[in-house]
Order: sequence, then C-alpha cells, then structure tokens
Amino acid sequence: MKIVFLGTSAAQPTVDRGMTCICLVLDKEILMFDAGEGAQIAFQKARLGWNKRIRIFVTHLHGDHCVGLLGLLQTMSLQNRTEPVDIFGPAGIEEFLAANLRILNFGLTFPVRIVRIKEGLVHDDIAYSISVCEAEHSIPAYSYLFAEKDRPGKFFPEKAKKLGVPEGKMWHELQQGNEVKVGDRTVRPSDVMGERRKGRRIGISGDTRPTAKLEEFFKGCDYMTFDSTYSDDLLDKAKENYHSTAVEAARLAKNAGVSNLILTHFSARYEDPEALVAEAKALHNSVIAAKDLLEIEIK
Amino acid sequence: MKIVFLGTSAAQPTVDRGMTCICLVLDKEILMFDAGEGAQIAFQKARLGWNKRIRIFVTHLHGDHCVGLLGLLQTMSLQNRTEPVDIFGPAGIEEFLAANLRILNFGLTFPVRIVRIKEGLVHDDIAYSISVCEAEHSIPAYSYLFAEKDRPGKFFPEKAKKLGVPEGKMWHELQQGNEVKVGDRTVRPSDVMGERRKGRRIGISGDTRPTAKLEEFFKGCDYMTFDSTYSDDLLDKAKENYHSTAVEAARLAKNAGVSNLILTHFSARYEDPEALVAEAKALHNSVIAAKDLLEIEIK
Repeated sequence: MKIVFLGTSAAQPTVDRGMTCICLVLDKEILMFDAGEGAQIAFQKARLGWNKRIRIFVTHLHGDHCVGLLGLLQTMSLQNRTEPVDIFGPAGIEEFLAANLRILNFGLTFPVRIVRIKEGLVHDDIAYSISVCEAEHSIPAYSYLFAEKDRPGKFFPEKAKKLGVPEGKMWHELQQGNEVKVGDRTVRPSDVMGERRKGRRIGISGDTRPTAKLEEFFKGCDYMTFDSTYSDDLLDKAKENYHSTAVEAARLAKNAGVSNLILTHFSARYEDPEALVAEAKALHNSVIAAKDLLEIEIK
Repeated sequence: MKIVFLGTSAAQPTVDRGMTCICLVLDKEILMFDAGEGAQIAFQKARLGWNKRIRIFVTHLHGDHCVGLLGLLQTMSLQNRTEPVDIFGPAGIEEFLAANLRILNFGLTFPVRIVRIKEGLVHDDIAYSISVCEAEHSIPAYSYLFAEKDRPGKFFPEKAKKLGVPEGKMWHELQQGNEVKVGDRTVRPSDVMGERRKGRRIGISGDTRPTAKLEEFFKGCDYMTFDSTYSDDLLDKAKENYHSTAVEAARLAKNAGVSNLILTHFSARYEDPEALVAEAKALHNSVIAAKDLLEIEIK
C-alpha cells in the first residue's frame, strides 16, 4: 500500500505543484482523494494504470479539487474502459458531473456511480472502510478516513512444514483462521501464524480549519495529510480563508496521536515549504512535506 | 508578435503534451485559442503574464478544448485581476461557464464577457480582426482567422533628418500618413517611409476534417496551425473521428497558398510526430510540428 501525491498546491498551481490529488494505491484498487485540474496528466506520470479499479472521493466542490474529474473520465473513455467508476462527493457533485457531461458532449464508455456523502461511513469494503467527517471551510467540505480492517497474522510456512501440515488446502484453512487435523493432531492457526495485524488508518483532511471534531476523527492515524496552506505568521489569512497553518496541522496531529504527518496544499507563495516543515517539527516528531509525484510506502 | 503553443495533444494528453491551447502574443494583448485542461499551468511556464489584456477564442465544446477556462478564471481571480476577460465560443459556452461558476462557487474579481460566435467577423480591433468559419467535426466546431490590418511602412529617421524635418510632432504627422511643410517645402510620407506593410494572417483550425470552405477561409495565410491528429495510414480513423491527417493538412495548406504550416493536435499514439512531418513535407515546403511551449516569432 502506498500514498502517491499527484498534486500538492493550494488553489493556485505553480510550475512545480499541480492542484490537489492524492491517491492511495492498494493491491487491486486505487482510492483517489480529490482530482484537481491536471490530475489525469500526473496520473499518467505516476504510471498508476488506467484500467485498475478506482474510487474517487471529492472533499468539496471548489474547482481546484474536482475539475480534473472531467479529463479523467474523458481519457478513461478514450481508453475504452468498461469497468464502473465510483465517485463520492458532497451535494452538488451530481449536478457538476451531469451538467458537464451534457454540455461537453461526453460519450462515456463505462458507468459512473455517484454517491452523495454525509458524515459517517460512506464505503465498506472487505478489507477497509471509508468514513467522512465534516470539515470547516468556506463551503461545505469533508475530510476522509481510510481504515483498513485488522488482518490475520503473517503465515510461517516453515512452522507448518515442521508440524507436518501438507501444503495446499490445509495451509489455506489455517490462513483463514480455522484449525486443521493432521493425523490425530490438531494444528491451530496460532501455531503457524504471527499475531493479528492491526489495520492501518490514513486520514485526508481536504481544505479545512483545524477543529476538535477532526482531532477526534483522525485519532490514532498512522498517516495523516493535512491542509498546510500557510506558515505560522499568516495565521490570520488561514482563518480568513478557512485553511490551516502547518503549525495548526502539527498541533492537531499531536493531540490526535497521529504517527506521521504529511503537510500539503501549500500556497503558491512558498517555493519551498521547508520553513513550514520546520515550524511543524517543533510540535510533532514525524513531519514531511508532500510534493508532486512523491510516493510513500505504508508499512 | 509570436505564436506560443501551450498544449499540442489530441483529446488524450501525454506526459509531454498537454491539451490544446494556442496563444498569439501581441504587443499589448494575448489572444488565446482554446484552453484545454492544464492551460493555466502551461501559461505560467511560458511566463505570458496574468495581467495582460486577454481574449479567449474557443473552437468547440469538447472538454479537451475548454475545461482549462475554469482554472484560468479561478487563478486570475486569486491574482485579483480587475480587467475584463472576453470569451468567444459556440452556443453552449455561456451555459458551460455559468453552470460551473455557480456549482463550483467561483468568486470572480473581474467581468467575463461572453460572445457567442457565428460565421463571419466576430471581433474587429484597431490593429486586427478575428473571423470565424464553420469547421467539420463531430459537434459544432469553428476555425479562426487572425487578420492583421495593413500597417504603414517603416519610418527612416535619417531620411527625415536629411530633409530637415524636426523630430517630434512633424515626424508623428508623417508616420500617420500626413504631409508636412518644412519652410516652403512639402515633405510626403513616402519621402521618409518604406512601403506599406501587408497585415499578417494566421489561421487556427481547431478540430476538423479538411474542407473546401476552410481552404478558402485560410487562403494566403502566413501561418496556419492545423489538426494533424493522424498519420496517412489512419485516414479512415481521421474520417471516422472528424479529424485530419498531416497529409490532409498539408494538401489544404498547399491549395490555400499558406506560407507556413504548423501541425498540431497529435494523437497520443505518436511519441514523436516526425513521421507526420515527413508525410506533410512531401506536399508542402514549410512544415513544422508544434510542441508544448514552442514559440514562433512571426516576422
């Protein structure tokens, strides 16, 4: 599992930073959070693969977070995609897509399924769930939480062999958490497997002020990407425009017990967000700045 | 005057080619033809300047030719632009802009004036005019012609000095085409100026099949950029999708007496359009391929 940043600028892009788009790349699926203008080009540069299963989660209906949906859908159609695409977003997302598909004469080759989000669980998969929490921005906006379900412990083939369990069906049974009989001996999953692995949690803030509600929502995240539009001296601007400073992101991360903080959505005034990282590091011990095409392997 | 290519791909962009956007940069004004997704980023890369007077001409309402308008308008607003922006386009352009400005909660800081185009003259300026001709594409689409007005000949200061014309007001009169009196001698503009300079003509095809009508429309162009989506062996595909091959572009350019042909709008299948240029050169003696950020000085 990895996080790939396709765009890390605030509303105004620069020659180095495109508009917001963050992908969580799972084994067989891509979860995309926001799709700002240019997302499809960054998607190609990152070689994420057009034909994978994809779900897209939009935080809010500002152009720099969703205009890229149009080009993504168009290019997928030019690639003759047939698999559906699920798009989650706040009220208005249906109208945004419907109006543009009609006016721009789109011919989609695949179904687009639109889910209008509200707070709480919005998607429940075998391996993970996606929840939503209201954020605090100039228009209705939401944050997302990816919560992986706990996974069985690691399977140790040598242990199974030592206990005389034949490879194949019986190994599979053990991996599924069931006991097996080898002759008249019972072998338990715990005999051949490590401890159950806790599911990983990844938070994506979208555009927001820091709030107590979000602090609760992101509790215990392994990784959290958070709105860090401004440095500490522009706190007033952050409040006025309903964004956050890097310091505020770090404070929220610390209070929420987030293990790793990734700053993103930098104002175009910062050519290099080095100073913002330094400010955040004064409050939190694991902080990095996102940049376009940065990939982070989630252990 | 120069042509700057901001995007040169067909509908599907590549990592090297963005979606269609062509700028004609005049002394005090930018004329932009189409604004595909990513136009605002290429615009920044080319350092064209956000605060210049700008007029945008849209050829047709396919996403890869107009979605970039949204980001351009948003970024201009973030820059606190106050000068109006004029957008010319086919029926539907008003709805495209109005729907998105409303749904995406745009706060524009400047007036956007929309002109719905039809065939004929659509803009008449002191120094140039813009005309429109119906193209042949899968939806209503148009080609544009920039026609500079004839300019007075070059002024030669040495000649004026030799004839005793004092610098200042009298030079200005001569440059404006008026005679002046120096003592009792009459000095005519032709005594101090070169021959009247013919206005330059630049054609922009947009997406189209080659047609007899366009051949007439582009007659005598100094430069013409033309839809060259495919190589000659894919003529069937060009017909099916209402585009042109490079060979067809060259044939039309030759028949229309176009001096210089610039191929653009290349299908993503061509990593390098070298072969398309070679095919076109067999028919026309001045052919080049556009590429992103290419600038051509128009002499």
